[in-house]
Amino acid sequence: MAFTYEVTVRFHEVDRAGIAFFGRVFEYAHIAFEELLLSIDPSWTSVFDDLGWGMPLVHADADFERPMRLNERLTVSVAVESMGARSLTFAFTLTGSEDGVVRARARHVHVFVDMERFESIPVPDEMRRGLAGLGLLEELEDAGS
Amino acid sequence: MAFTYEVTVRFHEVDRAGIAFFGRVFEYAHIAFEELLLSIDPSWTSVFDDLGWGMPLVHADADFERPMRLNERLTVSVAVESMGARSLTFAFTLTGSEDGVVRARARHVHVFVDMERFESIPVPDEMRRGLAGLGLLEELEDAGS
Amino acid sequence: MAFTYEVTVRFHEVDRAGIAFFGRVFEYAHIAFEELLLSIDPSWTSVFDDLGWGMPLVHADADFERPMRLNERLTVSVAVESMGARSLTFAFTLTGSEDGVVRARARHVHVFVDMERFESIPVPDEMRRGLAGLGLLEELEDAGS
Amino acid sequence: MAFTYEVTVRFHEVDRAGIAFFGRVFEYAHIAFEELLLSIDPSWTSVFDDLGWGMPLVHADADFERPMRLNERLTVSVAVESMGARSLTFAFTLTGSEDGVVRARARHVHVFVDMERFESIPVPDEMRRGLAGLGLLEELEDAGS
Repeated sequence: MAFTYEVTVRFHEVDRAGIAFFGRVFEYAHIAFEELLLSIDPSWTSVFDDLGWGMPLVHADADFERPMRLNERLTVSVAVESMGARSLTFAFTLTGSEDGVVRARARHVHVFVDMERFESIPVPDEMRRGLAGLGLLEELEDAGS
Repeated sequence: MAFTYEVTVRFHEVDRAGIAFFGRVFEYAHIAFEELLLSIDPSWTSVFDDLGWGMPLVHADADFERPMRLNERLTVSVAVESMGARSLTFAFTLTGSEDGVVRARARHVHVFVDMERFESIPVPDEMRRGLAGLGLLEELEDAGS
Repeated sequence: MAFTYEVTVRFHEVDRAGIAFFGRVFEYAHIAFEELLLSIDPSWTSVFDDLGWGMPLVHADADFERPMRLNERLTVSVAVESMGARSLTFAFTLTGSEDGVVRARARHVHVFVDMERFESIPVPDEMRRGLAGLGLLEELEDAGS
Repeated sequence: MAFTYEVTVRFHEVDRAGIAFFGRVFEYAHIAFEELLLSIDPSWTSVFDDLGWGMPLVHADADFERPMRLNERLTVSVAVESMGARSLTFAFTLTGSEDGVVRARARHVHVFVDMERFESIPVPDEMRRGLAGLGLLEELEDAGS
């Protein structure tokens, strides 16, 4: 199961070879992640303000398989790769919307913190429920059973 | 008449007040402009390579009326403000998609150059025809008649 | 009189013609402006938090005279173009550090607001004194006398 | 042995928590890498045009240990982590220039291609010699002997 969102490679994002600067892949992945959060709850724009917790990123990596060219439409799929007691790992795959060919893969590892005491906390229930509602925890549960 | 395209304010684009850094308005305007070019001709991704001409930007300005907040959907409308013998001025209005309230206005002035001799040239016929096909030259023609 | 700061055109900032995307000029100008603020008071990093006022930007414009190429060193000079009762206009000139040739000029207009009541306020005394201390208000005073 | 270069966290790079968006760490690392290339040969601005080879990035990762705050000065140190027959892995450490505390670590893996035939090639001699001239290959040679 995955959540998907389409992005387009823009003029201000490509380098002089006409391909997206590699750092953009993390922006594309985060854009899809923001849409995932909005689809769980449209008010999560203000997640840090209202819910009392935040989810800082502690690790990111990416593998680049093929160039992402100017104006290409890319489908970013978001999956939950693993869920620890206090962290969540999201896996992103960027695929050409027209040709179905993978351009890049990325992973983001988030931890959770209480924003008042700035202490590590378990994955909040709202987040678990939200991801489950999108069907993103099914494979993890199968693997764990 | 105007061409419109929707953008969303992203996490990596906002400052610590939670609003888009002012320079992003020029990126949002250019994104809508790229979509306008693609709607004229989907192959214009390669405008510089194949057509033999380019359209460098010589002036840009913007007025900021209201903050553009994280995750807001903004409708960017693109109009042709004026067309000189050798330049085109595009006017952009960024409006909240939900509330219809203007956030910012921007203008981009482009000139045209022959890419081989790097000399100024008149507005190319392909561009005039493309803009006319989108209905973007009607008011200009009325004003001129 | 002007305050100057050097920036370098970076790989992730150039487009596929190998020149800085036009929107970067506003980032370069703002970088020099941040250094100006830091030179007035190194603690102004937290201007919005501690001083109780902010300075939102309401207008920006730029003219592009020559391309800013990958890895070029550019000297950004910052001058106060005008000071109204409630606004400040800064003028930026970007010049090649090696050849002394102007690449672009930009202007930023800031207003001032009380952050608590979010109301317009006059140019704060700390800002006037800071700019005067850098010699940036001398020509204005001469012009006004 | 490492090559070092200082960067500053800028207003347009921080998020609404006032800390650098995580993707910026890859830009900071690449800025230091560009300065490393320029220190090997100031004409390497045009590496892709004149030398006939390029060095696409195939993998990037980063670990985030502490937030990088607005206007902080960060020292980026660049080391060669490993050199394969056809690839080079660079390790970057971002440290607060004032407090000496590590903020983040990153790695970039580059391969080399002949730009005409777009085929994989060994690490070019110019690159080996350049890195050796900066003392960046010494530990590798010790390890290999």
